[in-house]
Amino acid sequence: MTHESVTPPGATVSQVSESQLLRAFLPVATTHGPHVLTGPGDDCAVVAAPGGRVVVTTDTLTAGQDFLAAWPSGDRSTGGDLGRKCAAQNLADVAAMGATPTAVVVSLTLPGDTPVQWVTDFAEGLSRAFEELGATECALVGGDLGRGRELSITATVLGRCELPPVLRDGARGGGTLVHTGVLGHAAAGLDALLTPVPGRWDEVPGELRESLSAAQLRPRPPVASGPALARAGATAMLDVSDGLLRDARRIAEASGVRIDLDPTALEPAVAQLEPAARATGADPWQWALTGGEDHGLLAVLPVDSPLPPGARAIGSCAPAAPVRARPGSAAPTGCDARGQHREGPAVTIAGQSPRQWFGRDVVEGWDHFEP
Amino acid sequence: MTHESVTPPGATVSQVSESQLLRAFLPVATTHGPHVLTGPGDDCAVVAAPGGRVVVTTDTLTAGQDFLAAWPSGDRSTGGDLGRKCAAQNLADVAAMGATPTAVVVSLTLPGDTPVQWVTDFAEGLSRAFEELGATECALVGGDLGRGRELSITATVLGRCELPPVLRDGARGGGTLVHTGVLGHAAAGLDALLTPVPGRWDEVPGELRESLSAAQLRPRPPVASGPALARAGATAMLDVSDGLLRDARRIAEASGVRIDLDPTALEPAVAQLEPAARATGADPWQWALTGGEDHGLLAVLPVDSPLPPGARAIGSCAPAAPVRARPGSAAPTGCDARGQHREGPAVTIAGQSPRQWFGRDVVEGWDHFEP
Repeated sequence: MTHESVTPPGATVSQVSESQLLRAFLPVATTHGPHVLTGPGDDCAVVAAPGGRVVVTTDTLTAGQDFLAAWPSGDRSTGGDLGRKCAAQNLADVAAMGATPTAVVVSLTLPGDTPVQWVTDFAEGLSRAFEELGATECALVGGDLGRGRELSITATVLGRCELPPVLRDGARGGGTLVHTGVLGHAAAGLDALLTPVPGRWDEVPGELRESLSAAQLRPRPPVASGPALARAGATAMLDVSDGLLRDARRIAEASGVRIDLDPTALEPAVAQLEPAARATGADPWQWALTGGEDHGLLAVLPVDSPLPPGARAIGSCAPAAPVRARPGSAAPTGCDARGQHREGPAVTIAGQSPRQWFGRDVVEGWDHFEP
Repeated sequence: MTHESVTPPGATVSQVSESQLLRAFLPVATTHGPHVLTGPGDDCAVVAAPGGRVVVTTDTLTAGQDFLAAWPSGDRSTGGDLGRKCAAQNLADVAAMGATPTAVVVSLTLPGDTPVQWVTDFAEGLSRAFEELGATECALVGGDLGRGRELSITATVLGRCELPPVLRDGARGGGTLVHTGVLGHAAAGLDALLTPVPGRWDEVPGELRESLSAAQLRPRPPVASGPALARAGATAMLDVSDGLLRDARRIAEASGVRIDLDPTALEPAVAQLEPAARATGADPWQWALTGGEDHGLLAVLPVDSPLPPGARAIGSCAPAAPVRARPGSAAPTGCDARGQHREGPAVTIAGQSPRQWFGRDVVEGWDHFEP
């Protein structure tokens, strides 16, 4: 190591050795934390798992599929953005179990023309995300660096649980549906990033446009809310990665409950999107109810639980009435994860099916689960 | 789910939904095991971590970099091969800590024209590897499926430790260097796979050629030896992924010891390679001493420890003598991981430097660390 030359300024990964690349990465990344027993550099890292169990999730970001290096709007996804996004996605999954992130391993597959500075920026974005998202016990403990034609980032995050992990199938009816984080911001931001300039977004106030694009490029899930919701008694929880309607349906079907969303309670979230929706001709309710990648947390709490900071009640949860067997009848209208057929849609808005409420079909295959 | 059509025979991943792809994958994969508290399907998996700590490692295989789908020899890397190889690499890292693999998460990035059958074969290869390598407590607990231009596989493996994890920096001199597994087989196999037919490998007995190619395509590291070596008192250990000389040097430098390899003890391993080396004009010692990807285990045991089954003593380990400060002298001849300068090469063969012993320069940057 002492014999190797310093990385020249502006170098790309094809011009440096693996150990030079590691020197661009490791000193910038947060590699120490209260749960790191052995960090990067041996065959494995060793991570403390207080409580005798660990939660684990993995996620890959691939250029061209999960992000664009250069967006039609002229924005770019920097190394720092991707470090933050890859951290955010995975930390939100850990939070959604009611767990606290302890350790991350990251594998980077890099085209030869990737600047070495990109790697430094990535490490910095990743570590900043730990701080900014309140994952202060989390550290990078290992990884893999390789070459490839396509930029690809895989992160795996471990977490510890004080309480039993909160799964998506534990809601039993009679609960309050609560949400922390933003709704529809990442979807609106994706629209902004995909709109060439000049275009539909020109009339949107610059600060709002920036904030929505940032929500797509650098999502800020409420990581600390996960353990707080678990302590408040959450019986089911997940992170809203595929849209509120779809993810609420996941809880409803897995738990065998019906969820009714309260549009009045959702209005403040929708109001944040309205200036952008008005200027671009979009429907702010569609963004808020079906937009993915915000990585807010959606949980069911007992009705009498006090709400943790940042959590808003947005609906209610009732037992789903099983359908009686109807020999010779057509396929049933709904079916939960336990294979039991249920009456009516799993998720309603003010008592109506999403299609009725919107007055039109909405995205994400709702037809399969509606009357 | 009940509403989705069956995957048509011969379909590629661009023709099916994510849930169809999961149906090709999950039922074939081993997703249950003694440490799986919550398996695939929620935001995270939950894995038992008896002892309150977990070891973790990650590794990526990218087409064109880490393997070729179609080799010059006419061999192919199948989905099953890659499932086995990705398991083997990561399980060996866990074993090298003296740990027992408990859980794996896998992210697959697939070009659209990948046959769905490939995904099924991959799941089968992965699960077969758990059985065949003795990782019987290990299960697949989660992952991610995505599209990309380039086939890429990232696996992250967790493991549990009965005893404190064995690091590479714990050897203190006066120990026996032991090895389990094969030496040079994967390197010889890589040579066979990279040789077009007809070619240098035509005269090699077919069975030997097959066995060496298989060692590259589907390595079989001695996973169960890891905990056995830890129980036998190993003070340092790693898996031989970059060649015996280089990986022995890693132990020597991290621990501040000198390692001397005993060529007589290595002869039986080299003899297995000799018919292939004779027919192709290769040096079997070069394969055995510098070939990577066998993923055997290299450990230092106290001299009086009984050797676990399959382990062979191949050398000895002595304290490295620190060099006295020589003001104004040229750069020192060696330097260990603690930044202390040491006299002479970190690894010798029958007391000679690798260059002296081979009578020529050998690969892998040995010049930097020799007198």
